Amino acid sequence: MSTTTTRVPTAAGAITAAALASFDSTPDPRLREIMRSLVQHLHAFITDVQLTEEEWSTAIAVLTATGHITDDKRQEFILWSDVLGASMLVDALAHPADSTGATESTVLGPFWFPDAPRREFGESLSSEEGAGGVPAYVYGRVTDTSGRPIAGAELDVWQNGADGLYTVQRPEAPEDHLRGRYLTREDGSYAFIGVRPLPYTVPNDGPVGNMLRATERHPWRPAHIHMIVSADGYQKLVTHIFDAQSDYLDSDAVFAVKGSLVRDFEARDAGAPSTPQGVSGAWCAVRNDLVLAPA
Amino acid sequence: MSTTTTRVPTAAGAITAAALASFDSTPDPRLREIMRSLVQHLHAFITDVQLTEEEWSTAIAVLTATGHITDDKRQEFILWSDVLGASMLVDALAHPADSTGATESTVLGPFWFPDAPRREFGESLSSEEGAGGVPAYVYGRVTDTSGRPIAGAELDVWQNGADGLYTVQRPEAPEDHLRGRYLTREDGSYAFIGVRPLPYTVPNDGPVGNMLRATERHPWRPAHIHMIVSADGYQKLVTHIFDAQSDYLDSDAVFAVKGSLVRDFEARDAGAPSTPQGVSGAWCAVRNDLVLAPA
Repeated sequence: MSTTTTRVPTAAGAITAAALASFDSTPDPRLREIMRSLVQHLHAFITDVQLTEEEWSTAIAVLTATGHITDDKRQEFILWSDVLGASMLVDALAHPADSTGATESTVLGPFWFPDAPRREFGESLSSEEGAGGVPAYVYGRVTDTSGRPIAGAELDVWQNGADGLYTVQRPEAPEDHLRGRYLTREDGSYAFIGVRPLPYTVPNDGPVGNMLRATERHPWRPAHIHMIVSADGYQKLVTHIFDAQSDYLDSDAVFAVKGSLVRDFEARDAGAPSTPQGVSGAWCAVRNDLVLAPA
Repeated sequence: MSTTTTRVPTAAGAITAAALASFDSTPDPRLREIMRSLVQHLHAFITDVQLTEEEWSTAIAVLTATGHITDDKRQEFILWSDVLGASMLVDALAHPADSTGATESTVLGPFWFPDAPRREFGESLSSEEGAGGVPAYVYGRVTDTSGRPIAGAELDVWQNGADGLYTVQRPEAPEDHLRGRYLTREDGSYAFIGVRPLPYTVPNDGPVGNMLRATERHPWRPAHIHMIVSADGYQKLVTHIFDAQSDYLDSDAVFAVKGSLVRDFEARDAGAPSTPQGVSGAWCAVRNDLVLAPA
């Protein structure tokens, strides 16, 4: 018979110490730092709230359900990050407000997916006949922080439609609907015809929706159009433009509003002199200049 | 044109404050406490390590992969909880060491699943012919903290086999193999014939395995047999017995070893006088008395 010496932790603090020490041999110092900090904060959370075994089981079930509802068109983990403010915090750390005048960033959100169609200057973002909504002519220039135009910058644009839904939420919709990539011209100018966006709820038929209901938080986001702006030699900009007349600007479910990103969607009557080609009926115009920071 | 007043946070600290405040209306005070603490610690983690956007994307990808590898027979979220020490911390908070003499608990692990077959006193845990391994006769009594026998207590037992694998990891194995539920007799006694367990690696072909390799942690667990012991009027006990001669007792990948759970697996020669029915060849005997705390 062997005599067993207890060299193992039994008390809570000793378990935390052992979990931290397990990363002592991690070769990459950044990975070591992240894993140790993750353990420290995860254990502090569990200890602070004295998490019960039943609550732990609930957390495992919520994570499992989150994994199972997530696919190539729905990203419930990003949605958790968004509604807990984590996405905007990461954004704030990466892009601290500065005085260079570069356009501010905001969350990517769960609806972007790659390979949007390339579209021409001024082309409609819509690929679906009779989709409805008020046409929104969005135009402006992309410049550097000195005001010099950036030619050939790409704007990857996506937004919701007259039913409040993104195309990825509608299996029956043409995949390219309300998505497009535009290039700036020599003078940095770009233009596209979107639709006036609507406030909408974040997807709330899954684990995040259950949490929002249980905590009596509303699921609404103020009306906005997403864009990712990229050009060689400049920092990639992930941002929105928000409609200044939208509800929920001060209570966005994902904390993504920055005052500098709010734009006026100016109403225009049917047949107004500046009516863009292909637009009939009332529409609106949105000037949106964009400034990229150097890489 | 409207003038937009910025009432929204832009700095990191203001985002944390807004995310915390979003739970102010949560009706259930416990849920409010948990969500606020989760936000506080999640944001503190992100801020402490100054998590980059690229690292955030990696985290989302790891969580997504964890969700997609998890199914009704594999639980990679529990495995994360285990290898980060969170499972044992929750266990330690729920079952602080006391002086009542109740048997200590440890992690459930990712391999338990419900409805193991009911088996008779002394029956083999095996449902597969020629599965190999050294038979282990495990026996003892279940009592309360005063030493009084508990009749009709249920032991739900599961363990790995001679190949180091649990039955749920082997699609070709009979589902009932190395799983069983036993009831104690009037005197609190129970017995079953398992096999001597082997050290094994936690599943390391998924996201957790990638982390263990990147951090140069080993994936091994010391040899053990799992059991859940339950009886009316007593706290449910989730525990292991560990083989005192196993490797990795002091470096369990999931931090689950407690010295009080280590048992001697005593070697017996083929045909020894006490050889249990159905056992041929060399075997071993393990005395394992269990003490349940009152509910």
